[in-house]
Amino acid sequence: MNPLTSPLLTDLYQLTMLQGYIDHGINDTAVFEFFVRDMPESRNFFVSAGLESVLEFLEQCRFSKEELEYLSGTNRFNKALIDYLEQFSFSGDVHAMPEGTIFFPNEPIIRVTAPLPEAQLIESRIINLLHYQSLIATKAARCFFAAAGRAALIDFGLRRTHGAEAGLFAARSTYMAGFAGTSTVLAEPLYGIPIFGTMAHSFIEAQKDEEEAFINFALSNPGNVTLLVDTYDTLKGAKKVIETAVLLKKKGIKVKGVRLDSGDITELSKKVRKILDDGGLEDVGIFVSGNVDEYMIQDLFARGAPIGGFGVGTKLDTSADLSYLDCAYKLTEYAGKPRLKKSEGKATLPGRKQVFRQYENNIIAKDILTLEDDKHEGLSLLQPYMVEGKRVSETPGLEDIRKYTGEQLKSLPPNLRKLHKALPYPVDISSTLARLKEEIEKTLDTTS
Amino acid sequence: MNPLTSPLLTDLYQLTMLQGYIDHGINDTAVFEFFVRDMPESRNFFVSAGLESVLEFLEQCRFSKEELEYLSGTNRFNKALIDYLEQFSFSGDVHAMPEGTIFFPNEPIIRVTAPLPEAQLIESRIINLLHYQSLIATKAARCFFAAAGRAALIDFGLRRTHGAEAGLFAARSTYMAGFAGTSTVLAEPLYGIPIFGTMAHSFIEAQKDEEEAFINFALSNPGNVTLLVDTYDTLKGAKKVIETAVLLKKKGIKVKGVRLDSGDITELSKKVRKILDDGGLEDVGIFVSGNVDEYMIQDLFARGAPIGGFGVGTKLDTSADLSYLDCAYKLTEYAGKPRLKKSEGKATLPGRKQVFRQYENNIIAKDILTLEDDKHEGLSLLQPYMVEGKRVSETPGLEDIRKYTGEQLKSLPPNLRKLHKALPYPVDISSTLARLKEEIEKTLDTTS
Repeated sequence: MNPLTSPLLTDLYQLTMLQGYIDHGINDTAVFEFFVRDMPESRNFFVSAGLESVLEFLEQCRFSKEELEYLSGTNRFNKALIDYLEQFSFSGDVHAMPEGTIFFPNEPIIRVTAPLPEAQLIESRIINLLHYQSLIATKAARCFFAAAGRAALIDFGLRRTHGAEAGLFAARSTYMAGFAGTSTVLAEPLYGIPIFGTMAHSFIEAQKDEEEAFINFALSNPGNVTLLVDTYDTLKGAKKVIETAVLLKKKGIKVKGVRLDSGDITELSKKVRKILDDGGLEDVGIFVSGNVDEYMIQDLFARGAPIGGFGVGTKLDTSADLSYLDCAYKLTEYAGKPRLKKSEGKATLPGRKQVFRQYENNIIAKDILTLEDDKHEGLSLLQPYMVEGKRVSETPGLEDIRKYTGEQLKSLPPNLRKLHKALPYPVDISSTLARLKEEIEKTLDTTS
Repeated sequence: MNPLTSPLLTDLYQLTMLQGYIDHGINDTAVFEFFVRDMPESRNFFVSAGLESVLEFLEQCRFSKEELEYLSGTNRFNKALIDYLEQFSFSGDVHAMPEGTIFFPNEPIIRVTAPLPEAQLIESRIINLLHYQSLIATKAARCFFAAAGRAALIDFGLRRTHGAEAGLFAARSTYMAGFAGTSTVLAEPLYGIPIFGTMAHSFIEAQKDEEEAFINFALSNPGNVTLLVDTYDTLKGAKKVIETAVLLKKKGIKVKGVRLDSGDITELSKKVRKILDDGGLEDVGIFVSGNVDEYMIQDLFARGAPIGGFGVGTKLDTSADLSYLDCAYKLTEYAGKPRLKKSEGKATLPGRKQVFRQYENNIIAKDILTLEDDKHEGLSLLQPYMVEGKRVSETPGLEDIRKYTGEQLKSLPPNLRKLHKALPYPVDISSTLARLKEEIEKTLDTTS
């Protein structure tokens, strides 16, 4: 059983519900939509990510013999269900916003239309895939706005991501959102993302002194010389870089940068800049890591810190100020009838939805959340990606997704790019949708 | 390339450093230790987890032909390094605290002793494995203390964990810490963890009304009847459970519980309890999900909410109040000499360490952090798990680890079990270790 692709990557209730659906012939077409419920205090927009992995999951989702035997052996399910699962492959339609699209609360970023048991079974993993990647693409976009083109950003988070899949998704989601690359090696062969790296403290500590370590590193990696200077004393370390650079120059090797990883970064970066400049190393950049997030980047630039690059790790890849989005994958139609739930604080909007987006001078101005067959001015954001279980066309590669995400970010109104809370972006609920909601609620009030 | 087991699940700098180590014969024995730097405001102890997955990783860590070809093709590395990686298998020793051990800042929970390039290469994934699992086992233990035996706890978090591996690790780490099980199906065949599940709102919305949905579910899952009552109106839903229970009783099916997932849970759980009791369903339990964490559990019981079980999801599995631990895997000895770094705020303690733990009346009383060959009263916590790349003995199964973790939690002083900040547990740094640190710092001051 493959821990990343098994259809058993689901919640038990999906299977107990399927048992009910199969036994009682509840097998009509269902529509489910994935959306985020609210805009958190610490965010002004979201960036959608994870569509490609959802499509891959749906294409390959099958029960292996081993998985079917396990399920039979639990004695929880009858033969009808096991037979159904043996035949299972996703045969539904998927509409979605292109990966990298800016979105707001209540707007579906994926809509799945399929026989109810199919659409139900895949719920847990679809949420799992979309939630984390959108969470990280959103956080990365905030870092990108904080840097505002003044520094290259590199994902440094693998060691503290929540597992390996999160590490790989973080590399991809941050690259989409404008990062220059990642330190995670596997992201290069897997996704074609540029990888970057310097050296660790252990490399220095294991050798006689910093000079020896610097020289040995440079001789072995002549094209990639960024030297870590804070192992013992940052300013002394920076001075040694000057001596090292002279020696290396004779061998035709150029020092590209120094890395600071601890201490008061504003002060140290300014002092190190001066040391490097005084030593004739004006073109050696300062690269900073350690506790970096969008707030620190903004703050450092506000204080005039002369930094050319950041390694952004833990706080980005765990989205430390907001470790989750309040998202859901909800039934909005079954057997041709719109559906909703009224649960306190978690009520949903019924029907197959579409989002129209209106622009003013290439900046997004207003969204209209409405029903699929409703017409409104603006760009319709949900597009068909899969019909009857097959992709309708080739999906874009990561470079194209990154380019598209960049254009999306450029279309954001300046106030939403700020790190602090802005006035909410207007998302109108169309009168058609509002009326439908009222009608259904009335029906429920009389029947329930 | 397997995204969960590839040795390329590492940071680029590990490979650029390896290039330096191999080129310059820096290949002596190194000792690295994994520890957490500080106790966060919101925690009083940590629970170690992830050892089993680290041992598995070390046992199987090899470079495939495909991975070697990719590395060669990048033109970043020379033939000497590629040859080294082709031969690579972990040949070192691992000492560790048994999985499930309570630990505190600066105490190593794993110590790796191996030729420097080997110990270096595995750093990123070792941290990745230990960090998340210990983070979640710790958070789960806090939920366990908050419930204090009054309610069964089930991990419900898969959909919002950061990727699939996190979902599986969360199921395992929470089970270790006393949870009754998880909703993640794959955790049963993979780890043997009991799985639990009820029904979703979609199951109800897709059918004529709640009664029909309740009956259909119960007929299909007669041994597992927990009914979700908040889809439209929680109190009306609870009343329908009484009618449903009468009908089902005739068919020999028992309703086990109801689930509340929204609204004011204190008030609703009391009202639902009364409705159920008045309807003769005194033995039907109330199960609560939605935004649950240790604080909510403690609060609900403080208000007298009559709850028998909790589904604990997002806030637990993303450790929402603390999405990461400030942990590190640091070189402490190389070529027989103790090493340290002095970086501001991130200084490390040198040498191969051991932790001695002293008890009073079966409650832990004091730890002594000292050097390996030092003798102190108390239990020595770091034990050998791997010698020259091979496990020294069979490691315990998950049930044994869970039992051991339970004993560990019982040994915690009552003040550390509270959710709010307690006085720190005493961890003494032995005079031998303190002296060694001073000596090395002196040497560095004269050479640097």
